[in-house]
Amino acid sequence: MEQVSTIRSHGGSQGVYAHQSSATGTAMTFSVFVPDHAEGVQLPVLWYLSGLTCTHANVTEKGEFRAACAEAGVIFIAPDTSPRGDDVPDDDGYDFGKGAGFYVDASQAPWAANFKMRSYIEQELPALIAAQFPAADMSRQGITGHSMGGHGALTIALRNPGQFKSVSAFAPIVSPLNCPWGEKALGGYLGPDKAAWRAYDACALIEDGARLPDLLVDQGDADDHLHEQLKTGLLVMTCRKAGIPAMIRMQPGYNHYYEFVSTFMAEHVRWHAERLKR
Amino acid sequence: MEQVSTIRSHGGSQGVYAHQSSATGTAMTFSVFVPDHAEGVQLPVLWYLSGLTCTHANVTEKGEFRAACAEAGVIFIAPDTSPRGDDVPDDDGYDFGKGAGFYVDASQAPWAANFKMRSYIEQELPALIAAQFPAADMSRQGITGHSMGGHGALTIALRNPGQFKSVSAFAPIVSPLNCPWGEKALGGYLGPDKAAWRAYDACALIEDGARLPDLLVDQGDADDHLHEQLKTGLLVMTCRKAGIPAMIRMQPGYNHYYEFVSTFMAEHVRWHAERLKR
Repeated sequence: MEQVSTIRSHGGSQGVYAHQSSATGTAMTFSVFVPDHAEGVQLPVLWYLSGLTCTHANVTEKGEFRAACAEAGVIFIAPDTSPRGDDVPDDDGYDFGKGAGFYVDASQAPWAANFKMRSYIEQELPALIAAQFPAADMSRQGITGHSMGGHGALTIALRNPGQFKSVSAFAPIVSPLNCPWGEKALGGYLGPDKAAWRAYDACALIEDGARLPDLLVDQGDADDHLHEQLKTGLLVMTCRKAGIPAMIRMQPGYNHYYEFVSTFMAEHVRWHAERLKR
Repeated sequence: MEQVSTIRSHGGSQGVYAHQSSATGTAMTFSVFVPDHAEGVQLPVLWYLSGLTCTHANVTEKGEFRAACAEAGVIFIAPDTSPRGDDVPDDDGYDFGKGAGFYVDASQAPWAANFKMRSYIEQELPALIAAQFPAADMSRQGITGHSMGGHGALTIALRNPGQFKSVSAFAPIVSPLNCPWGEKALGGYLGPDKAAWRAYDACALIEDGARLPDLLVDQGDADDHLHEQLKTGLLVMTCRKAGIPAMIRMQPGYNHYYEFVSTFMAEHVRWHAERLKR
């Protein structure tokens, strides 16, 4: 692991790191914010998965998470959204290929060689964090994300109930099986058999029996993508049917972007911190 | 005035606007955050002047001011740092010409035609705000800024004691007469006669008799530019000699950039709000 930069901010250290990933076969970049803490103390970890077109940098610059993380004593990790590099296949659209990994392990050529973001986020990067950041208490992990990253957070948490003690999302894609972004991405990465998509669809995972202890979701009601792509209502219904105590809040007047995410970030950090306390 | 965009954030409206400036002879862009407020209520205004290479967008995206402004009921205005456009003269350096207006009225060719940022910030833009934003109480204005913009905030406040009731700065250039950035910019915009520079030098203005009611400055002690360019110590000595009650805080470990500005932004907003109360 190479340290690209570290800079002091909000009473902690904001770092950017790069490493060679065996999951994706490429170099990968991620950011980690570590609040000041006494020597030997371990802090809980909050994963933040980003949305379409983003890298680690968007939330790191615009997410407004550091004040709340420093206050609550939470380490904040922001991975990239896909493999990168000239040798990695890409698509002309913003919603498939680079910047749009959808947190799946692709099975279809030419994507399968590099687009293994599920393995990267679920296994490789947590192992790297555990090895390189002694302050990170990997027995206390929470996960959140925005849009495609909200989909990532929900599906990863649903598939790994032991690993994440707290789950939230900002304007998540709740059912790739039921929206154009999902049709394109899962069709491309996983092929036409929709049975294989269900492991990457929060609503389908819940229908198939997966559960969350509870859930916080914020969604702007003026979100450009709400009705065609995000379809929050499907998650509301699915959680209700499954008996998952979900707090899904429609936020009046808010759109889809970081002006929205940053508004509710501190509340999400505190919500996770409360559930990740020793 | 044209509304480029508005988006809901942190319980208020973040807008970006463009207009044709008579001061600069160019189109100018700025951002305004207006917290939610009861109809007919007027709110105080905080000006934020940005540093070298910046536009309105840097602080608007990365400044983390909106939560504090919404809480305190303060309108936040972020102008650009220079005229822009293909017809505007420029310099190869990042520290002169476009993105580096230094908040002066240039007297030297070819800069004098467009580089009138002093008149723009002191007169034209406040008049536009007063006309277009009925919620802005122009009898309650504060001013702050970062780096070159800290220089702008200090010098504009010192020259206009009736206009600004509160003044602060983040890592300001405190004396262009005594640093390479200032030598290049003021030499270029104003010519070699350094007597003309004194109106654009915070320390010189104070030495020449200008005063501030009080002052808040934050400065990182790990700032790349502290010793060669910013020279905070000169401001400490000048304020002490002049009897200006200045709180100038050296912040351990902090560098020069938005990770630093955003850390102390909320405190600055509250500091201004306290002084701008009715």
